[in-house]
Amino acid sequence: MAHIYIYSPSSAVRDRAAFRRGIRRLQAQGHEVEVDAAALASHQRFAGEDATRLAAIGRAAASGADVALISRGGYGLTRLLPALPYAEVERAIGQGTRFVGFSDFTALQLAVLARTGATTWAGPSLGADFGTVDEPDDIMQACFDDLLAGIGEGTGWRLPAPRRPRAGDALASEGAGRLHALPQSLHIHQATLWGGNLAMVCALLGTPYWPSIQNGILFLEDVGEHPYRIERMLTQLLHAGVLGQQQAVLLGAFSDYTLSSHDKGFNLHAVVSWLRTRTSTPILTGLPFGHVPTKVLLPVGACTDLLLQGRDALILWGHDHAHADDAGGHDHHDH
Amino acid sequence: MAHIYIYSPSSAVRDRAAFRRGIRRLQAQGHEVEVDAAALASHQRFAGEDATRLAAIGRAAASGADVALISRGGYGLTRLLPALPYAEVERAIGQGTRFVGFSDFTALQLAVLARTGATTWAGPSLGADFGTVDEPDDIMQACFDDLLAGIGEGTGWRLPAPRRPRAGDALASEGAGRLHALPQSLHIHQATLWGGNLAMVCALLGTPYWPSIQNGILFLEDVGEHPYRIERMLTQLLHAGVLGQQQAVLLGAFSDYTLSSHDKGFNLHAVVSWLRTRTSTPILTGLPFGHVPTKVLLPVGACTDLLLQGRDALILWGHDHAHADDAGGHDHHDH
Repeated sequence: MAHIYIYSPSSAVRDRAAFRRGIRRLQAQGHEVEVDAAALASHQRFAGEDATRLAAIGRAAASGADVALISRGGYGLTRLLPALPYAEVERAIGQGTRFVGFSDFTALQLAVLARTGATTWAGPSLGADFGTVDEPDDIMQACFDDLLAGIGEGTGWRLPAPRRPRAGDALASEGAGRLHALPQSLHIHQATLWGGNLAMVCALLGTPYWPSIQNGILFLEDVGEHPYRIERMLTQLLHAGVLGQQQAVLLGAFSDYTLSSHDKGFNLHAVVSWLRTRTSTPILTGLPFGHVPTKVLLPVGACTDLLLQGRDALILWGHDHAHADDAGGHDHHDH
Repeated sequence: MAHIYIYSPSSAVRDRAAFRRGIRRLQAQGHEVEVDAAALASHQRFAGEDATRLAAIGRAAASGADVALISRGGYGLTRLLPALPYAEVERAIGQGTRFVGFSDFTALQLAVLARTGATTWAGPSLGADFGTVDEPDDIMQACFDDLLAGIGEGTGWRLPAPRRPRAGDALASEGAGRLHALPQSLHIHQATLWGGNLAMVCALLGTPYWPSIQNGILFLEDVGEHPYRIERMLTQLLHAGVLGQQQAVLLGAFSDYTLSSHDKGFNLHAVVSWLRTRTSTPILTGLPFGHVPTKVLLPVGACTDLLLQGRDALILWGHDHAHADDAGGHDHHDH
């Protein structure tokens, strides 16, 4: 049984039924769920005025909880970044509180990484992942349980089968660039894992909240962004030198967009193919993370190993990497 | 009569009727209209493959035209930036070709400014502005004619009347920040005017195509972006120090977005009010520029004066600023 602190650093909770379901579900799992006093506050789009949300983050840091879990993402953290209680969050993390969330929460995670170097967790939110009408996703739940039990030391997935180039693909039609195919095997040793929501990552470029990670492993996901916007954001990271400075880029789910007749074959596959002609950094797709039910938990800012053998990928963290091949970790090849 | 070169550096032209209407209209105005060989090319979303569009930009630069006018905006320039023919564009500008456009074209304009210092023009596109079923907007047309005649030396507008703070406004409710009200009068002398589409401006942050303008006048517009996205982008410019480094920020039209019930009073006014509590740089609204028919032409990268007296604003450029107060320029107070 763990002590879980629920708070709202971003958008106001509008789906109170999901909020309550999430709390009941965590309680039914045996956890002590503590709800922040302002968890249901509302001001414009936000879960309270700026000062209210900053205070909530401070209370989450002071809670002594095992997990500080966001109620939901949305929008609202970037404008709080100058005033975040960095020292309090860092101290709480040092004392064992795991800060968990995704989407807008990426802004806090990367700012905390930039300012303090502390590790937070890309993972579920209360409403979207535990407040579902159906049972929570098995893999998300297993990863969350592992985090609470302190036994998760990695996560694996199977990359989608490579597509043959077709007419209209960047590879076939652009001509200009050489495609950098994925190597058959890859072993990246002791690299910083970082990233999250692509729009939030890009929204921090050029600011003091940008973690300048070199030789890292960057993971990205997004929701509701058309592939041309995804490409524009990836191009910004490319031109800023960020992609070239990483040892690998992991692409999670890019969900909930609509292609139009104007696209004429321009899609996410075309974006990735084009990008692979512009950078030699390996780009691994299919990471089970994003605005989708099946999301693994990933330590943002942690030192990790990445193993790729054929289509099988494995990220490992924790204290003992000496026998990485034997370490195991959850292996989610079905996704 | 001017020589106008039409080319397509961004998205594919889909509305060919508007394209043809625009050409006929410019011809009817007495201009020699030259259409690039690839102006109607199409590859995925783009007006041709990357190499096709790069060659088109090169031909526009080599055309010797008085004006190189984009057929339309859309998406596609950021990924071309490393390979743009900067020297050719700079030489063409030096020889009198005015590069005119907006929206996605902002990427080329700012990259050219960053790399060469040359001035381009934020202004109309062929399809959206000259290809309309109704007559082109009077003010846009007058500014365009002035550019061709070489007699435009400025532009003026009347700022919207200030709103009284209401419950729910950032000013009234945030409490924290002090509102920096606009001064009654302002005279900024010899500052670089720059900017354009907000999303494109932000998409260049952190890249080698970012023009690091200090003490400038930054103008911004956007279309189809919800106020929370506008705020997120403005916040990035704020945190990156860009707003604080300018002498003024001019906000044009932010059009075609839909507020939702979740916003609860969060709107563009709330965004601007909040921003005015975070920066002392004067933020002037109502600039007649953006994805709207009434758009003035603005020299991106030019040395300008900005005069504000009450609600009357005037931007002046050209060679003689000694008697700025007498210089006149088009004064569009009705908008």
